[in-house]
Amino acid sequence: MSQNQALRDRVRSIPDYPKPGIVFRDITTLLQDPAGFRETVDRLVTPFGTHEVDKVVGVEARGFIIGGAVAHQLHAGFVPARKMGKLPWETVSAEYELEYGTDAIQMHTDCIDKGERVLLVDDLIATGGSAGAALDLVEQVGGAVVGCSFVIDLPDLGGSTRLRERGYQVSALMEFEGD
Amino acid sequence: MSQNQALRDRVRSIPDYPKPGIVFRDITTLLQDPAGFRETVDRLVTPFGTHEVDKVVGVEARGFIIGGAVAHQLHAGFVPARKMGKLPWETVSAEYELEYGTDAIQMHTDCIDKGERVLLVDDLIATGGSAGAALDLVEQVGGAVVGCSFVIDLPDLGGSTRLRERGYQVSALMEFEGD
Repeated sequence: MSQNQALRDRVRSIPDYPKPGIVFRDITTLLQDPAGFRETVDRLVTPFGTHEVDKVVGVEARGFIIGGAVAHQLHAGFVPARKMGKLPWETVSAEYELEYGTDAIQMHTDCIDKGERVLLVDDLIATGGSAGAALDLVEQVGGAVVGCSFVIDLPDLGGSTRLRERGYQVSALMEFEGD
Repeated sequence: MSQNQALRDRVRSIPDYPKPGIVFRDITTLLQDPAGFRETVDRLVTPFGTHEVDKVVGVEARGFIIGGAVAHQLHAGFVPARKMGKLPWETVSAEYELEYGTDAIQMHTDCIDKGERVLLVDDLIATGGSAGAALDLVEQVGGAVVGCSFVIDLPDLGGSTRLRERGYQVSALMEFEGD
């Protein structure tokens, strides 16, 4: 973890956001720093070779920033996993649980060819609901999941453990205590 | 324009979306193609050198995908222009007109240092409302606009002309008739 301390120091922690008792980890301060952004992308792809990834899936919305850059670095295509009703073509959908209620994400049915190797990226993994749903969709449309790469893991919330229990390779650049 | 025909052919045109009479230009088919995505980013940055851009601003949400990749290619930082209420820190806001009513976007007050050179990117320019608002915010926080780079221009809707009349350098990889 220590080798990523410089990146960790660039994440802004905002107490009581979005509600009292929660510390929000704001990565905009990391991404807006040219060296920090580049180093973040370099480290996100380190566990995965260019030859191993055909497509990068990013989850709306911050995952689009990370995912676009990672796809570029890996010479891969980029596929968005979007909130409901945002994709204009034929879609598949997967629901996931929130603290109260459920939410869902969608991907285009033709976004990944059968057997293509897919890397999922997002800025943060907490309970892993949206990441798990995105992985379900990748497999539903025929993709082979190479792994999942996150900037931040909140391990107390169990998402990374749950994804590993499902057999996925999961990596993250830094951890924070869950709030 | 002809040199970009291969990219243009990868954009999916969806008639009557999101409403009758509108043809939606879907760039997911371009972005999910590894060669198409890479070529798109290469061409977006062609008018601008690495040394010329400190920060890339991308407009939520598709502009995040393009902007993340362009920032990576240019070794620049990435700054999101987000919909209202999505940024966790102190913000500046700018309104712009829609067909019916208004919308607004926000940026963090500390996202750009005074005098930093900024490139705005987005997937599409139509009337130029959100792009114009984003440029207002860049200048409000002290940035110097280097230019604006779009994948698609709908010149009939006048946005690119309006931005040029404001003195900005505007480029786009392809044009479609406005619908």
